[in-house]
Amino acid sequence: MTFELQARDAGTKARAGRLTTAHGPIETPIFMPVGTAGTVKAVGQRELKQDVHAQIILGNTYHLYLRPGLDVLQAAGGLHKFNGWDQPILTDSGGYQVFSLGATRKIKEEGVTFRSHIDGSKHLFSPEGVMDIQRRIGADIIMAFDECTPWPCEYDYARRSLDMTHRWLKRCMARLDSTEPLYGYEQTLFPIVQGSTFADLRRQSAEFVAEQGRAGNAIGGLSVGEPAAQMYEMAELVCDILPPDKPRYLMGVGTPANILENIALGVDMFDCVLPTRNARNGMLFTAQGIINITNKKWATDFSPIDETLGDYASTFYSKAYLRHLFQAQELLASQIASMHNLTFYLWLVGEARRHILAGTFAAWKPGMVEQVSRRL
Amino acid sequence: MTFELQARDAGTKARAGRLTTAHGPIETPIFMPVGTAGTVKAVGQRELKQDVHAQIILGNTYHLYLRPGLDVLQAAGGLHKFNGWDQPILTDSGGYQVFSLGATRKIKEEGVTFRSHIDGSKHLFSPEGVMDIQRRIGADIIMAFDECTPWPCEYDYARRSLDMTHRWLKRCMARLDSTEPLYGYEQTLFPIVQGSTFADLRRQSAEFVAEQGRAGNAIGGLSVGEPAAQMYEMAELVCDILPPDKPRYLMGVGTPANILENIALGVDMFDCVLPTRNARNGMLFTAQGIINITNKKWATDFSPIDETLGDYASTFYSKAYLRHLFQAQELLASQIASMHNLTFYLWLVGEARRHILAGTFAAWKPGMVEQVSRRL
Repeated sequence: MTFELQARDAGTKARAGRLTTAHGPIETPIFMPVGTAGTVKAVGQRELKQDVHAQIILGNTYHLYLRPGLDVLQAAGGLHKFNGWDQPILTDSGGYQVFSLGATRKIKEEGVTFRSHIDGSKHLFSPEGVMDIQRRIGADIIMAFDECTPWPCEYDYARRSLDMTHRWLKRCMARLDSTEPLYGYEQTLFPIVQGSTFADLRRQSAEFVAEQGRAGNAIGGLSVGEPAAQMYEMAELVCDILPPDKPRYLMGVGTPANILENIALGVDMFDCVLPTRNARNGMLFTAQGIINITNKKWATDFSPIDETLGDYASTFYSKAYLRHLFQAQELLASQIASMHNLTFYLWLVGEARRHILAGTFAAWKPGMVEQVSRRL
Repeated sequence: MTFELQARDAGTKARAGRLTTAHGPIETPIFMPVGTAGTVKAVGQRELKQDVHAQIILGNTYHLYLRPGLDVLQAAGGLHKFNGWDQPILTDSGGYQVFSLGATRKIKEEGVTFRSHIDGSKHLFSPEGVMDIQRRIGADIIMAFDECTPWPCEYDYARRSLDMTHRWLKRCMARLDSTEPLYGYEQTLFPIVQGSTFADLRRQSAEFVAEQGRAGNAIGGLSVGEPAAQMYEMAELVCDILPPDKPRYLMGVGTPANILENIALGVDMFDCVLPTRNARNGMLFTAQGIINITNKKWATDFSPIDETLGDYASTFYSKAYLRHLFQAQELLASQIASMHNLTFYLWLVGEARRHILAGTFAAWKPGMVEQVSRRL
């Protein structure tokens, strides 16, 4: 996997680049739709490619490991072959889901034991095991097994957790580097910077991660409830330490404004369930602002969902029709809204990239942050 | 609206024709996907046209009247403008839904009073009212307001109901013929033959309907629980009486085998919720037979969903992947299965048409009936 830095914005720390994987290129900054169980909820693969213009999607190790399971995925020849998505895939480590299980999981140095939310069966995720699982899933980009600390978090807990995350990272690297891909193409590990909202821990973690010299790096443990100002502070601090010639992935972020602000701080890659989850609840992100489509005021508004994008949803359907579909609890409501929100997110990072390449990002960003944060 | 009879099969009573509406042509025999609330469940309008190759869809008067309501539909300029489907639309009369409401509805000569399933509000559907409603919805083909008798049904009830249905038909025609379309294009009324499974009533009704000389005719009250043999007997009896130069629409039918058998008896148009409803439960119709995709035996079957069709679902997804989506209760499961089943139904009537035009229908039909009825 190679990363070419194509441009740096003069007025901010924003960058434009090109990441090349065995399944094709990714132009950064990029947003990666979340495909939890091997499917981006309510959006087909053809539509993801042709309408949303997604360049890479995520899979969730925890979910895929439990269902369909690794035997099925391996028999298919990996996740790309299984779900028919032939562009790049990134898998998380499963850590985030496992830690969210609360009472049913136990963290030890060896790894985490947990019970399946599906059938209550008991499992162990260890750094080595999770590398093997991601090998079998067949993602192009594999995430290290880390502990994502909750927020707020005691300093001592954050420090001890961080030390363990670093020890786990070493184990992840040792395992991945001593095993081969199963499907004949390269799989690249991204380490994850943790440290909660403590500047000294974040600095220490970023330096540790930078030293490992992997092909890309990630920032975890943000967007977990902390104020946005703290998220930006930590992201900037970490980006300033991570090597500039490697892509930087801020995990689980965020709103359209969050994404633009973090691009300005030097982040290249994002993922978040927000566009799809909110779509299913009738919240639409548009270039004009945020719409709650279930609101009565849209009942006879026959204008396009987004006046600017000219996307699938806006070409074929009106606000009034989409509102009706939500009122009638029709499946098509989720389909249209999900496609629209994802298309908007990809449009937004594409616009950011265009402005970075043109040298106009710093001037463009503040107005766009305001515009996309407005409630219509 | 014009109907051109293009071919008659020598060995059966099957016909191929072309119905021309203000929103374009329909090649018969045809299957019409059901779009209850202005949307064919889980399938977008672009996909309906480009992938399913639907030529006409249905809307349900009862559902559309209650939600989004006629004011919204009229403000949009009719259902075509509202839902973005620019090809022909047929609306049922709402009678079938209203009669299904059971205890909350009352049938009188004037019409039927009922309570909304959404908010309990009280409404009256009369022949005149239902014509006005369908004018406002803006369907190309409008169905007469009739009583669809349940099965089994007492002879006396069926006879009295039929007489009322005929009186109602006269009132429907009088109202439609004395009003103008609201959106500048022609709207055509199809009368409905009733009479339960009583041959003399069916004959009487078919003769009455034939005498009215409308541009197309329908057969209602079948596929409501009676044995298939009785359905075919009634359909044949009625088709033999209805004018050959007008299209014949058998309402609410049916399985792939039902459709082929009724085409052989002279039916030109069909609608049914079966392909979409069963799709959402994991039952797939294919050219090889019927698949319950939730069955464990498909877990590692990576072959296309349908080996013959080469449709959207079969091109992009495997049986194993679709099974996984059902297991994980993903929305994409319903989307893929619905698109597949509808594409199969349209493929099936297209194949029937091709064989009628080629003079090979009678020889082709029995094998295909067997093939599509097989459980895989």
